[in-house]
Amino acid sequence: MEHPVWPSLAAIHAARERIEDYIHKTPVLTSSAIDKIAGCQLFFKCENFQKVGAFKARGAANAVLKLSAAQKKNGVATHSSGNHAAALARAAARAGIPAYIVMPSNAPPIKKAAVRGYGGQIIECEPNLQARENTLEEVVERTKATFIHPYQHLDVIEGQATCALEIFSEQPDLHALITPVGGGGLLSGTALTSYYLSSGTKVYAGEPLGADDAFRSIRSGKLQSVGIPNTIADGLLTSLGEINFKIIQQHVEDIYTVGEEEIISAMRLVYERMKIVIEASSAVPLAAVLSQKEVFENKKVGVILSGGNVDLSKLPF
Amino acid sequence: MEHPVWPSLAAIHAARERIEDYIHKTPVLTSSAIDKIAGCQLFFKCENFQKVGAFKARGAANAVLKLSAAQKKNGVATHSSGNHAAALARAAARAGIPAYIVMPSNAPPIKKAAVRGYGGQIIECEPNLQARENTLEEVVERTKATFIHPYQHLDVIEGQATCALEIFSEQPDLHALITPVGGGGLLSGTALTSYYLSSGTKVYAGEPLGADDAFRSIRSGKLQSVGIPNTIADGLLTSLGEINFKIIQQHVEDIYTVGEEEIISAMRLVYERMKIVIEASSAVPLAAVLSQKEVFENKKVGVILSGGNVDLSKLPF
Repeated sequence: MEHPVWPSLAAIHAARERIEDYIHKTPVLTSSAIDKIAGCQLFFKCENFQKVGAFKARGAANAVLKLSAAQKKNGVATHSSGNHAAALARAAARAGIPAYIVMPSNAPPIKKAAVRGYGGQIIECEPNLQARENTLEEVVERTKATFIHPYQHLDVIEGQATCALEIFSEQPDLHALITPVGGGGLLSGTALTSYYLSSGTKVYAGEPLGADDAFRSIRSGKLQSVGIPNTIADGLLTSLGEINFKIIQQHVEDIYTVGEEEIISAMRLVYERMKIVIEASSAVPLAAVLSQKEVFENKKVGVILSGGNVDLSKLPF
Repeated sequence: MEHPVWPSLAAIHAARERIEDYIHKTPVLTSSAIDKIAGCQLFFKCENFQKVGAFKARGAANAVLKLSAAQKKNGVATHSSGNHAAALARAAARAGIPAYIVMPSNAPPIKKAAVRGYGGQIIECEPNLQARENTLEEVVERTKATFIHPYQHLDVIEGQATCALEIFSEQPDLHALITPVGGGGLLSGTALTSYYLSSGTKVYAGEPLGADDAFRSIRSGKLQSVGIPNTIADGLLTSLGEINFKIIQQHVEDIYTVGEEEIISAMRLVYERMKIVIEASSAVPLAAVLSQKEVFENKKVGVILSGGNVDLSKLPF
């Protein structure tokens, strides 16, 4: 049964059509070498090849395209130091509207350059949550732009949900589907699509031990804060969102935590065997599969490689 | 007109069918970001995704599969510190015959491990050409194995020529096609296929300045030795072969040399924008295109990314 507020299957299909011209239909790749190591059959959805180098292009495009004409006039705003910032800047530029991006002053120069490259206007703030939220509030007040939250936003979740649509269109008979979890945008969207399209598919997430709020939230049944996260998977530092948590609680089978060494080793495996560039966050679900061999043994498992934006001069190997 | 000795178009087609089950049909990828930088339309043939991580899988498979039953019994031998070694070991293993690989004692452990992983028998020698050739001679004498030269071998050239067949089947209207050149196996095979299938396509090569024997050979009209090569593009350290040179002289438009900085910068561009892992040799043709913008301006240019076997702990950025 569909939830009265959460995106419906029809809405997710409509989102896929809406963003069609804004995104790539990314390939699903396989690796017999990694299958052998994992003891199961893996289908890697390569969102590292997505526009702006991450699945975030989907949600941002969907949210921008669903704005009313009046909203569009004033543009969009967000706070993000990562892929959502670039994705929103790009979607806004393509739609011909301004994007105001609040970024912590210590955000990596490469991330700032990406946002500027897409025509986004950066507003710097102190690197803490309070400063981030205050600055965003000021910007929204001043510009009347619409705030597009990186994951706690139904149109963003609806957009991220289109990724699993594409996976099931190529591999309808997956036993399991696993994503990373940070704020929960990708995981909640994936869980919804999977629930609607393939009730036999169990949805899982991998999460860094150093930012395990989703794991603790699921286990305690109550939304937990991330505290002071510490992981190389810099896309997963954020706290799980409230709407995201509700969807995840209902439709996700389990969340597995993995240590830094496991993340780095899974990341290296993908570079070496698949010859593709992924960011550390993308390696987290594979690390989880490798750490839970009995769960996935001989199964067909979809793995979402969430993004490929990595500072090449700081690879951990 | 076909040369009486060189592989004919029919022979190249037959090779493609012969090796079908031994290789991947690799994708042709594009990047609007790199096109913008290059000022032309690039079609990247991704042999980094090929079996054993390099185009060498083609020539080695073709040569092994063309052996007579009597030859097969005694196996194959070669000297190589690189991708041909792994490719020959794998092709031999798949055909159920032994492979003897002479490798310099200082070959990278990762390359030795790859050969062993495919079941090849490594015979170490001193790291110089004389020791290499003497050791190979001893091995062939002892085992009666058939020597499969890495590039100066018609069946190997015929195999490498199948790569361009696949490119033209996807992109028949290329103005130019460019490969790296080391021994000349890939370049001579590509030039033959292009000559047969698409006389309007000009074939070029990129070559490191630090190993520019092909460039000097073409300019002087006489096969030049590589001397003491020095380049990060470790797949291109070898001297151009004699047969290869003859084909290249007749069917290659020009060879452009590039410096180490240009190679590294092109390599980084591919990692950052295309999110794929390539070895330094693969970046050489792109570096050449970027250094000769007036030649390729607004053209449709095929670029062969020859391989993806790189020591990740020694990336030059």
